[in-house]
Parts: sequence; structure tokens; C-alpha cells
Amino acid sequence: MGAEAIALFSRVGGGIYTKAADVGADLVGKVEAGIPEDDVRNPATIADNVGDNVGDVAGMGADLFGSYVATILATMVLGQEIIVKDTLGGLSPILLPMVICGLGLIFSIIGTFFVRIKDEKSSVQNALNIGNWSAIILTVIASYFVVTWMLPDGEIKLRAISFSKMDVFYAIVVGTIVGAIMSFVTEYFTAMGKKPVLSIVQQSSTGHATNIIGGLSVGMKSTVIPILTLAAGIMISYHFAGLYGVAIASAGMMSTTAMQLAIDAFGPIADNAGGIAEMSQLPPEVRERTDNLDAVGNTTAATGKGFAIASAALTALALFAAFVGIAGIDRIDIYKANVLGGLFVGGMIPFIFSALCIQAVGKAAMDMVQEVRRQFREIPGIMEYKAQPEYEKCVAISTKASIREMLLPGAIALITPVIVGFTFGPEVLGGMLAGVTVSGVLMGIFQNNAGGAWDNAKKSFEKGAMINGEMFYKKSEPHKASVTGDTVGDPFKDTSGPSMNILIKLMSIVSLIIAPYIYGIGG
Amino acid sequence: MGAEAIALFSRVGGGIYTKAADVGADLVGKVEAGIPEDDVRNPATIADNVGDNVGDVAGMGADLFGSYVATILATMVLGQEIIVKDTLGGLSPILLPMVICGLGLIFSIIGTFFVRIKDEKSSVQNALNIGNWSAIILTVIASYFVVTWMLPDGEIKLRAISFSKMDVFYAIVVGTIVGAIMSFVTEYFTAMGKKPVLSIVQQSSTGHATNIIGGLSVGMKSTVIPILTLAAGIMISYHFAGLYGVAIASAGMMSTTAMQLAIDAFGPIADNAGGIAEMSQLPPEVRERTDNLDAVGNTTAATGKGFAIASAALTALALFAAFVGIAGIDRIDIYKANVLGGLFVGGMIPFIFSALCIQAVGKAAMDMVQEVRRQFREIPGIMEYKAQPEYEKCVAISTKASIREMLLPGAIALITPVIVGFTFGPEVLGGMLAGVTVSGVLMGIFQNNAGGAWDNAKKSFEKGAMINGEMFYKKSEPHKASVTGDTVGDPFKDTSGPSMNILIKLMSIVSLIIAPYIYGIGG
Repeated sequence: MGAEAIALFSRVGGGIYTKAADVGADLVGKVEAGIPEDDVRNPATIADNVGDNVGDVAGMGADLFGSYVATILATMVLGQEIIVKDTLGGLSPILLPMVICGLGLIFSIIGTFFVRIKDEKSSVQNALNIGNWSAIILTVIASYFVVTWMLPDGEIKLRAISFSKMDVFYAIVVGTIVGAIMSFVTEYFTAMGKKPVLSIVQQSSTGHATNIIGGLSVGMKSTVIPILTLAAGIMISYHFAGLYGVAIASAGMMSTTAMQLAIDAFGPIADNAGGIAEMSQLPPEVRERTDNLDAVGNTTAATGKGFAIASAALTALALFAAFVGIAGIDRIDIYKANVLGGLFVGGMIPFIFSALCIQAVGKAAMDMVQEVRRQFREIPGIMEYKAQPEYEKCVAISTKASIREMLLPGAIALITPVIVGFTFGPEVLGGMLAGVTVSGVLMGIFQNNAGGAWDNAKKSFEKGAMINGEMFYKKSEPHKASVTGDTVGDPFKDTSGPSMNILIKLMSIVSLIIAPYIYGIGG
Repeated sequence: MGAEAIALFSRVGGGIYTKAADVGADLVGKVEAGIPEDDVRNPATIADNVGDNVGDVAGMGADLFGSYVATILATMVLGQEIIVKDTLGGLSPILLPMVICGLGLIFSIIGTFFVRIKDEKSSVQNALNIGNWSAIILTVIASYFVVTWMLPDGEIKLRAISFSKMDVFYAIVVGTIVGAIMSFVTEYFTAMGKKPVLSIVQQSSTGHATNIIGGLSVGMKSTVIPILTLAAGIMISYHFAGLYGVAIASAGMMSTTAMQLAIDAFGPIADNAGGIAEMSQLPPEVRERTDNLDAVGNTTAATGKGFAIASAALTALALFAAFVGIAGIDRIDIYKANVLGGLFVGGMIPFIFSALCIQAVGKAAMDMVQEVRRQFREIPGIMEYKAQPEYEKCVAISTKASIREMLLPGAIALITPVIVGFTFGPEVLGGMLAGVTVSGVLMGIFQNNAGGAWDNAKKSFEKGAMINGEMFYKKSEPHKASVTGDTVGDPFKDTSGPSMNILIKLMSIVSLIIAPYIYGIGG
């Protein structure tokens, strides 16, 4: 709960923070004043760089840490219900998720040693992938030995479903595969040079509108494989070991969180390095190198988000299972009119949450634009490097706006389950949670991937992009269209998209907390 | 089923048809050749006008007719299960939906007499609203007498739920209120001069990207009240008269379909009148008048779509209830892993369906652009009105593209329920249907309203729009940004948005048809 509350602030607030500064800085700096991105004369540039850290590093950290803790806890709650005879005094199903996640942590550290770059030309993305895969494979192998050693032979039973210890191991394998596929698909949909991004580049040639249409349709299409994977993962891990299987699969997937976090932090670090290079007026080849890293960073940020949303979904399911047990219901029957009503309302919440997040960025960016314009107007000599801009004022605007604007979405996430739970009872609340989870995962994937794809479509023009046999570079008409897509994508991928994880988990946790008090209502 | 298949063609195919021609005609005509919209020299203009009729008039007609028939049938199926002693040989619960819809038809015709415009200055929107409300109120009053006359006194029972004849009447009232609120909310979110459209106008001043962000967030926000209304409508009508209540509420809402259809056809007729005025080179005040009507038409088209999506949702629920009975299941428990998996997959289908529809418009529009460019190049004298463009070639391109591109989405709607039903059984299929319905309704409302709002934000500039105390007109920078939004909104509101209705209903009908054959699978 604490971790999630911090995640709410860092992710949603941080998302608003960084994007207000980013959009504000770009609109006045690049467009109006004609100075480059991250130029030291732009007062909003410090707020932009601070925001990158708050949103993408601290936010992602708190988000994944929240999933990590919640998953382990939910698995332990379910493990508690299992009665086994083992060498650990019957505690093995409770201890297992902790041991596996501990192993994952160790192998993530070992995995980082595999991330090696020989020379300037070798692929950064490949190096990161090798590190990630090493960590995953080592963790799976170690899990096999841990499971066979810890769990007893013979039948293990949870809520009328029996399974063996090998079934538990298979469920862990399923979890890691789901995580890997989610990252892999996200990489495909957002990486430069792959078909989806190229299609957006192509559609930029006919204008702003077709660029937007292209990005939206890439984002929507990118939901198919992750959802099928997730659904299959739920079904298969349940098939192996019931609800404990779903929870331990989630723990298996989360075990290499540390590695994911390292890969994800790559993006904002590269981005900020570029910003500092620009501000310190280092030679252009430095900026070129950081830009290369930044493009890879966009993809790793997107794959990290793919992983985060999958983890949020599985965590929510594990919490969901724990919720059903504590609230004293044995089903959530959407054939009942009021449960179906709950499903509808739950499905709607990610839409209003996204709208509020996007709007908040818009409002905060307008404040930032006014402030930057004021400074350019009132402080003489900024443009000639003679006077220093008041960076701290821009930082203050971002900070205030992010705290102010996250209140309403935060309140929705916290209060809705309480109202629905106490008015209509646990079954309707369960329906609503299912609605939030399904619709939140979809909106999260859609927005993250559309945003990532737009960003890299724009980056494609910086190196020069071929459309119908003609090369286009920066400042060409297609490039301008791609900048529009990137600006739309910014709040998508850095504010509303990632905030879906927090929304899903926060509502599940609040529901779990109130579960004992709504026992029997509406039954 | 027949009506829905035609609706699939007219709505999805027609949507692709008209938007390919519309976007294609605008891109080459307005942007490249610099001739006005609907100019007689543009070869794609006939295809555009034909498309308006196919998509918005024939498509909407088939769509609403499909809902109309399916609702009456589903209510009759449920009515068949009710055993009552009445003066009609026990048939009253079966006949009731037909009688009410018949009355609604008569009162819709009477309602049209209330649509009166005194002079040039009176509000067209108000006149239409008065006609609509007259029809609704007269139908409700008449229903009271029909219900008290047809249904017997005392207890009526369906699937263990008892209710009285007054409860049935209340359910009908609930249905009409839901329909009215849906139309009313849609009008608010898409009408010129109201806050949502003005916010998009305001955000057009800072460029293409903020215009897009504004429209997306308006669309997302517009889902809140309709979904709460729908959920409340389901719960309250179920509270009054169980599943029969939900079905008869839907029938009550659908009873004034004829009126809705008349209001909806208003838009494309006004649009085409404008097109013909332009092509025949009538004096500009004619075009001005048709443009005024066209703006009201955009809103009525949106309200019609709001009504259509509500009707599709309620129809799907009525079909859902009938499906559960025939498939021999007594619950759809999303606490089961595979049913939850079905819910996830169902929720994803509207996303891929939308993506395919939007993409199809993009592809077909590119074909159209090539053809128009070719004609301008190869047929000398078009620009000087000396040679006639080959209109028929553009019509052929739209026709072929629409049939070709609707195959894949159509196949998804038809085949998915069959595969899921025969592999996993009726309960998982039920979960999937719930997912499709919830996510389809949300995506439908979101896309319809975002599209309608963008269109009228653009239209606002044609009359002149005030932003921060400055007036902006056609060809100003904010107007150009608003054109981008409109172009993105076109496939949203005329192709993928309305096609959600068809998707939801078609999948429910297919499931109902296969229900007897999947009885017992996966149990």
C-alpha cells in the first residue's frame, strides 16, 4: 500500500511533471524561439530533466517494486491456505515466492555482467537482451531445484484443486514466458526499422492526420498478442496449479524485476545525458551518440512498460484471488445484472483516468509555456547567454501542477472501490475490479505502444527516412507531422499509459483492505 | 441475422467507402490542387456523396433495424418462458414488445409533425428535439394503457424472479430514459458552442498535437455518464422485472427508432445537399445555409450514434440472457481462470476491429489519392471545366476497397465466437461476449464522440472562433490544426466507432445460434 501510494505520486504525478516541462519547453523553445531541444537558455529544461527521473526512474521503480511486493504478498496469502507436510514446518508454499524472487534478484545482478558492448557498432539493444535472457534462464533453472527441494512430494491442495510440485514449477516457467513475450512484442511494435514504426513513418508523408491515425492503429493492434498471451498464461498456470499457480507464475515473472528496472532506467539516463551534453555545449558527435542511445532507450522504456503492465495485471489477479477468499464469496457471476453493471463501470474508469491524466499534462504545459514566455520577455540577455534563466520557477510550476492535478484521478482510484463495495457488496465490486483490470491493461498497452512508436517514428527522421524512394530529414514536412505524433504520444506513454498499472493495483489493494468489512453485503 | 449481415456491409463497408472517398478527395483536391470541397472537378466527389448515403443512411438504417428486430425477438424468447393467464391465451408477454414497438412507430410519425421551423433564425436542433420528445412521451403514455390492458394482474414469474405488470411498465420507462440521456449527453459533448467542443477549439491555438490531445480526452471523458446511465439502467430494470425487465426496457427504448433514424438521416442529407449546391455552383448563401444544417447534422449524427450504441448494448444483453438459457448454463463466473481469460480476449477484440477499420480507410484513401492524381495528370482540361472527370472509376475504387477490407474484421466477428464456443464451452464464450460488449460500448462512445467533437471544432472556425480574445477564421493556423483533428475523427466517427454496434450484436447473435450445439462443453 505504501509502495503503491508512492508509485501513484511518482508515476502519475511524475508523468504530469515531466511532460508538462517537456511539452512546455518544446512549444516555446523549439517552435517559438527556434533554439534546440535541451538548450541551456530554455528555463524549462531543468524541470524536464528532473521530470524524466521522477517519472521514468523513480516512478517505474516504485511501480515495479509495488508489483513485486504485492505479488509476493498475494502468493503468500494463498500459500497460507495450503496445508502441506514438508521439512520447513508446512511453511514451504509461503516461503517459495520469496526464495524465487530472491534468486531472481541475484541472477539479475549476474545478468548485468553479460551486458557487454565491444565497439561503437555493436547493437546496444542486443547486449541488453542477452543480459535479460541470461537472468531469466538462470532463474528458471534455479527455480527447478528450489521447487523440488522445498515442496513435498505428492498432492498439494488449494481450494479444492490438487496439483504436484512439478506443476508449480511449470507455472513458474509459464510466468517467465509471459513476461518475455510481453517485452518481445512491445519491442517489435516500438523499435525503429520494424514494420509498425515504418508504417507510421510512411503515413507521415501525407500529413499530420495520417501520422496520428497510423499511430493510433499501431497502438490498438499491439494489444492482440499481449492479451492472448496473458489470457493463455492465466489459463495454463491455473490449469497446472490453480490459483496458487497464477500467483506463483506472477512471482516467477516478477523475479527478474531488478533486471527490467535496470533496462528501463537506461532510457531516461541516456535522455538526460543528451540533455546535459547539449546544455554543456559538447561537440555534436557526443549528442549524436546519446541520441542513438536515446532511441534504444525509447524501446527499452516501452518494453519495460510492457513488462510492468503484465506484472500489474498478474498482480491484480493474485490480489483478486485473495480478495474473493477474504470477502467470503465463491463466485463473481456477470450473468447477474448488478455485477454486469459493475463490470461496465469498472471498464469505464481507465478511460476517465486517462482523460484526466492527459488533460492535466495539457493544463500544466500551458502554465509552463506562459512562464517560459514571461522569462524570455522579462529577463534580458537570456538569448545571448548573458543572463541565467530562473530554472527553479519552472521546477516549482511542474511540482505544484503535478501534485494538484493528480488529486482527482487519485481520489477516483481510492474512493470508487469503497463506495461500490459498501453499497453493492463484494460480488459487484469484484465485477468492477475485473472491468478495471481488463480495460486498464488494454488502455495501458494501447497508449504505451502508440506513444513509443510515435516517438521512434520521429527519431527515424533524425537519421533520415526513406519514403517512396525519397529521403526525408529533420525539418521536412513528414518530420513535422511526426513531431505532432510524438507530442500526442508523450502524455500517452509517459503519463496516462503507465498510470494504468497503478490504477489497477491500487483499486485491487483498496478492495482487498475493505474486503473483511463488506463481507455479506448485497449477497 | 440477415439484417445484421447487411448492417455489417453497410456500416463497416460503407464507412470504409465514404471515408476513403472523403479523405482521398480532400487530400488531393483541397490540399494539392487547391479546389474547394465537393468541387465538380474533383473525380472523387461523387464517390464521397454516394458513400455518405451508404454509410450514414443505409448503414444506420440497417444497424438500428437490426437492433430493433433483435430486441423484439430476444424479448419474445424470454416472454415465451413466462407462463401467465391472460385474455390473450397466455401470449401477452410475447406480444407486448411488438405492440409497444408498433405504437412507437406510429408516434414517431406523429412526432415528425411537431418538427416545425418558423423562420431562418429559429434553432434547427430545438425543432428536432421537440419532435423526438413528443414521440417518446406519447409512446410512454400509450405503453401504460397497453401494459395494464394486456398483462394480467398479480404475479408474473421468469427464472425465479417475480414481478407485477406495473413493474414491467416501470422498466419500459427506464429504457426510454436511458435512450434520452444517451442522446442528450452525446449532444452536449459534440455540439458547437458547448464546453467540450470549445475546449478543442481553444487547444487548436497551440497546434495540431494539442488539438488531437484535446479531442482524445473529450472522447474519453464522454464515456462516463453514458456508462453510468447504462449500468444504472440495467440494474434498475432488472430490479423491476428481472431479465424480462432488461429486455422490455430495451424494447421501450427502441420503440422510437423510426424517429431516431429520421433525425440521423438529417446529417448526410444536409451534407449531400451542400455537395450538390457546390457542384451545381449555386450562389454562396445556399452553401452557407446547408453548412449550418450540416453542423446540426454532425450533432444529430452523433446523438443517433449514441442511441445506436445504447441500443446495441441493451440488445446484446437481451441476447446474452437468451444465450444463457439456451446454452444450459446458470452463471458466468469470472472468478474461474478460463472465463476471465475469455473476458480479456473479448475486451481486446474491439481494439483490433477498430484498428483494422481505421487502417482500411487509410489504405483505400491512398488508392483514391493515386487515382485522383492520375486523372488530374492524364485527362487534360479537368481544371478548366472542359473535360469531365471519370467519376465512375473513383466509385469503383471505393466499392472494391470497402468489400475487400471488410472481410477480415467481418471474419473476426463471425468466427471467433464459434472457435471459442466449441473449444472452451458456453461459459468462456459468455465471458468473451461480456468483454466484447463492455469494451465495444466504451470504444464506440469514445470514437463517435471524439470524432463528432473534432468535426464541429473545425466547423467552429468556419464561422469564426474566438481564442483568448482574438478571432480566427478559415485558413488560420488554429483552423489548420482543427482540420487535422477532423481528418483523424472521420474514420473514428464514421467507420470504426459505429461498427462497434455491429460487432457487439453480430457476435451475440452468432453465439446464440451456436448455443444449442455447445451445450455442456467445458462444463
